Amino acid sequence: MVPLYDDERHDYLLANEKMHIIQSPTVFSFSLDAVLLAHFAYVPIKKGNILDLCTGNGVIPLLLSQRTNASIIGVEIQERIIDMAMRNVTLNELGEQISMVQGDLKEMQAELGHSKFDVVTCNPPYFRTPEKTEHNKNEFLTIARHEVYCTLEDVVKACKLHVRPGGKVAMVHRPGRLVDIIALFRKYRLEPKRIQFVYPKQGRDANMLLIEGTRDGKADLTILPPLFIYHDDNTYTKEAEDIIYGRQ
Amino acid sequence: MVPLYDDERHDYLLANEKMHIIQSPTVFSFSLDAVLLAHFAYVPIKKGNILDLCTGNGVIPLLLSQRTNASIIGVEIQERIIDMAMRNVTLNELGEQISMVQGDLKEMQAELGHSKFDVVTCNPPYFRTPEKTEHNKNEFLTIARHEVYCTLEDVVKACKLHVRPGGKVAMVHRPGRLVDIIALFRKYRLEPKRIQFVYPKQGRDANMLLIEGTRDGKADLTILPPLFIYHDDNTYTKEAEDIIYGRQ
Repeated sequence: MVPLYDDERHDYLLANEKMHIIQSPTVFSFSLDAVLLAHFAYVPIKKGNILDLCTGNGVIPLLLSQRTNASIIGVEIQERIIDMAMRNVTLNELGEQISMVQGDLKEMQAELGHSKFDVVTCNPPYFRTPEKTEHNKNEFLTIARHEVYCTLEDVVKACKLHVRPGGKVAMVHRPGRLVDIIALFRKYRLEPKRIQFVYPKQGRDANMLLIEGTRDGKADLTILPPLFIYHDDNTYTKEAEDIIYGRQ
Repeated sequence: MVPLYDDERHDYLLANEKMHIIQSPTVFSFSLDAVLLAHFAYVPIKKGNILDLCTGNGVIPLLLSQRTNASIIGVEIQERIIDMAMRNVTLNELGEQISMVQGDLKEMQAELGHSKFDVVTCNPPYFRTPEKTEHNKNEFLTIARHEVYCTLEDVVKACKLHVRPGGKVAMVHRPGRLVDIIALFRKYRLEPKRIQFVYPKQGRDANMLLIEGTRDGKADLTILPPLFIYHDDNTYTKEAEDIIYGRQ
């Protein structure tokens, strides 16, 4: 029996009703962003090595395990949260495929080597670090959402360090950071190959972007069809529902 | 009476049935790209100065004149084509508002000064210059479509030179060049502020991008709602039709 602490809940992982996930409103809950990234990212089907940085409670490795037999390692800096991720692996009996490692993504080279992964995924903190006084009062959430322990450049640099030449890096972020992301991907020789913008509804500005780059790839970018999440009546679109419920 | 040469036609400018345009299938015909850019670009309403680089037969200045009282200058390197643009100004009796100048956008500083324009628009050649043997056999079209006389960097550099600090640069291009465009906009301190992707239909990859940057602006990018051109049955969507027929 896997224990639950504090206000943790044991939920179904929506995308797959056979899977379960422990999360907590005050420590870490996975978001639609992670679900979309796990669907968007290229993965080798039969074998290989995948690294998920800023893994949180491990939602991306759990979802990816349904699409690939590759080994998956998740890295998370917060001990309280990686513990949740480890219990999620146990809960779903995925210990043979998924390993969770507590650590700082800027300092994983000793443990993970370099250029060892076919794919690196990351759902990083989105917000530039505000003044201390503006920090979310909840430290767990502040660290997960703000660039407290790592900047966007730290994240892109770590992706570059760990992905093999020709391997892929997939990230989810806010459209407002597109220019920074593209500049950093180029700086670290992760050539953007596929971008998809996610829109809450028809007629609204994009509120999420999914980007995949290839290490040392040549310039050849595709902008995928837009993904709309809700109909005007706030029900999910079929495409969003198919992703969320793991139907495609 | 404005003369027509060779296979030139005298067409209605679709967006406005009061306007006329001379074009030619073998020399220069305007495209949907230009119409979308003329709709997308910010323009000051009452006064100001607008520059349109790579103006071709002047379609963008003609369309912009319907949205603004600002003075508009079009620059085109090909004599045969700027002559068409000049006749288009005469044909529409817009000589007081629009001037057409033959010249190389890389060398316009003597004539146009620097930092003089509130807005610079450009529908540049899209394709990297191929080997001589692969050039379009028609030299007029080759120059209009390929980076023969100017590279993308030349274009962005010229936009930066001519726009005033705080002024806007709007461009239409192919999504495959997004990374280059963003890198060059940043290099020349034209901070991207608005991007819209244009999709031929729902479910297809984007085939056009509209981008607007502000000289010396701060980072703050919006990805506008996607624009779809055709329904599945190949009729125009209402949004495309409204733009093409000048209804919004």
